[in-house]
Amino acid sequence: MKDLFADRMSKVPKSFVREILKVTEDSNIISFGGGLPNPDSFPHTEIAEAASKVLTLESREALQYSTTEGYKPLREYIAQRYCKGGLKVDADEILITNGSQQGLDLVGKVFLNKDDGVVVEHPTYLAAIQAFGMYEPKFHSVKLMEDGPDTVALENLLKKEKPKLFYCVPNFQNPTGISYSEDKRREVAGILRESGTVLVEDNPYGEIRFMGKDLPPIKKFLPDSVLLGSFSKVVAPGIRLGWVAAGEEVMDKLVTAKQASDLHSNYLAQRIVHGFLTQYDVEKHLDKIRTMYRRQRDLMVNSIEKYFPDGVTCTKPEGGMFLWVTLPEGVSSMELFDLAIKENVAFVPGKAFYAEDPEINTMRLNFSNSNEEKIVEGIKRLANALEKIL
Amino acid sequence: MKDLFADRMSKVPKSFVREILKVTEDSNIISFGGGLPNPDSFPHTEIAEAASKVLTLESREALQYSTTEGYKPLREYIAQRYCKGGLKVDADEILITNGSQQGLDLVGKVFLNKDDGVVVEHPTYLAAIQAFGMYEPKFHSVKLMEDGPDTVALENLLKKEKPKLFYCVPNFQNPTGISYSEDKRREVAGILRESGTVLVEDNPYGEIRFMGKDLPPIKKFLPDSVLLGSFSKVVAPGIRLGWVAAGEEVMDKLVTAKQASDLHSNYLAQRIVHGFLTQYDVEKHLDKIRTMYRRQRDLMVNSIEKYFPDGVTCTKPEGGMFLWVTLPEGVSSMELFDLAIKENVAFVPGKAFYAEDPEINTMRLNFSNSNEEKIVEGIKRLANALEKIL
Repeated sequence: MKDLFADRMSKVPKSFVREILKVTEDSNIISFGGGLPNPDSFPHTEIAEAASKVLTLESREALQYSTTEGYKPLREYIAQRYCKGGLKVDADEILITNGSQQGLDLVGKVFLNKDDGVVVEHPTYLAAIQAFGMYEPKFHSVKLMEDGPDTVALENLLKKEKPKLFYCVPNFQNPTGISYSEDKRREVAGILRESGTVLVEDNPYGEIRFMGKDLPPIKKFLPDSVLLGSFSKVVAPGIRLGWVAAGEEVMDKLVTAKQASDLHSNYLAQRIVHGFLTQYDVEKHLDKIRTMYRRQRDLMVNSIEKYFPDGVTCTKPEGGMFLWVTLPEGVSSMELFDLAIKENVAFVPGKAFYAEDPEINTMRLNFSNSNEEKIVEGIKRLANALEKIL
Repeated sequence: MKDLFADRMSKVPKSFVREILKVTEDSNIISFGGGLPNPDSFPHTEIAEAASKVLTLESREALQYSTTEGYKPLREYIAQRYCKGGLKVDADEILITNGSQQGLDLVGKVFLNKDDGVVVEHPTYLAAIQAFGMYEPKFHSVKLMEDGPDTVALENLLKKEKPKLFYCVPNFQNPTGISYSEDKRREVAGILRESGTVLVEDNPYGEIRFMGKDLPPIKKFLPDSVLLGSFSKVVAPGIRLGWVAAGEEVMDKLVTAKQASDLHSNYLAQRIVHGFLTQYDVEKHLDKIRTMYRRQRDLMVNSIEKYFPDGVTCTKPEGGMFLWVTLPEGVSSMELFDLAIKENVAFVPGKAFYAEDPEINTMRLNFSNSNEEKIVEGIKRLANALEKIL
């Protein structure tokens, strides 16, 4: 059977993160490894009420086949929310997908021939490497600084390699928690504008800013680009709903690709989420998440400062769900992982997040899915493991 | 922007069926065009109750990220149902997908390099051409007779072209309504067993047999094959849930491909459907659908016999949702379509369902989504259009 598989399958590893999650199923282990939102943040009652309403009043429609593009009122809601934020987007420029992950897959399907270039951040979102990887591109990466990518390197890379896509996560990136400054956003837009490369901007965490001021998406300075969004972090991930925003020409291709992939996204879920978004106080709900995550992030950052040995640094994100730890040069986070498991604490070694030239001394910590007690205890355990390795 | 799109996008047309659905949105038109189940067949109350239960009792789990493979109890239910029907399948051999459509996409992703051969039936399911088409294979087709494919032609084709996949719909095929006889199933299994070709058996309609006796899936005679299933026709399509059954080695690749495509299928929906399937009388529910569709099928077949002019023939399916009309040689169903729209009745011209060498004098009629009055009236209108063209 092996000879029958497509070439692409030999190139895409299983998600290391998901493999790690299996190790950490042991309930004694405090895991900062996963990328899960806090289930306390889900609007449980509201979703139950919205579901009941949809299934009582609109069941014949909600359970039937629907259009590939998605539920029009939901697309209108998303477009209006962008417009309120200062980004002009029409409902017809929104395609509903199964989380933003499917958006990545569809973008790969629509744009990538084998060996086309894709520039990603260094480090980057692991599952983007997987999604694009299925279309067998050549990955290039551009170093992420404190305020966004190394733009000189980006410009050179675009000139030299003429890649099809530049994929980035400008808000509270997974894995680093880094955000692009407004200057960097403008600069990236300027560089892209002069190139033949399409910007693919992924923004699953943008609504979860708990410090600092909101910054415009790069798409605002580069309208002819692709922007991905998700309800996974602001409503709930189990419903698998996200979207792609793109202009007419790209949208037309995305719809064709989506149709071939699974006809359309879960229509019942689309109507339920729309019901929640329009019948409840979403700002209050978002504030609740932001307050919760801010407290958890502060506690993790403070605990790291208190317990971690000198020479270990971390990012201090203004939103999102992750922070990024850098160990002293030459210290391997993979080796640390083994020691940490013995201390009953888990994280994701940084290695998994690089499309090329992985750095061995980095690691990702998730702060959204642990309660306050576990955060302090987990960081203490991690500090013990660090003492041993340093 | 156009130059930036992947080659595959120039090869896949938009679904003609979905384009037709737009024409037929006019409420004066009686449409036999779509492929929709009858919304009267949906278990509305049961789904509402099951949803309420899940969202009250299991909300923290149901709204969270889950495993790529799918909700284990749902996979166990599917495996047990196969076992009851005499097909030995383990829950670990089931992957939950977004309808069987996503199963087709994942199978394409896992198996197909550019220019690999795929054999399909002549005619075949349109959206399979679209799903596989994204991986740029070479399509070959094998004529469908009254009791299944022309097996001599199939055997020759497999020897000559050494295709990767043979895709078929042995029960109440879309578009023709044709089913494979048990002999043909065994024969196809035998031919495939001797070849290096993987069987991809799609069975979305198998549970909707309203006449004749159940026949085993080809997988029973060829365990090392891929079998697709769907809840779209037996529960509801708006929830977008189906599955792939395959052995360990293929399953491993399918899971990798699914993970890259959208992480996992809607978890809330998986739990709701599982609740419905295990807490209600599913056999009674299926009998209701079968009785409903049998009545609609009988009425359409009888009306055709009564009103259609001589020389026009149709299949008489024992289940499913479609029948297939053949016009006299040389008469174009595309031209008939234009006349039919003037008579306020719609169908899908057969042309859309061929991977190669389309036959112009065929057409698909859907009987599941029209009430009895509309079936009689629609067939009368179609007969008027036929009188004009013949």
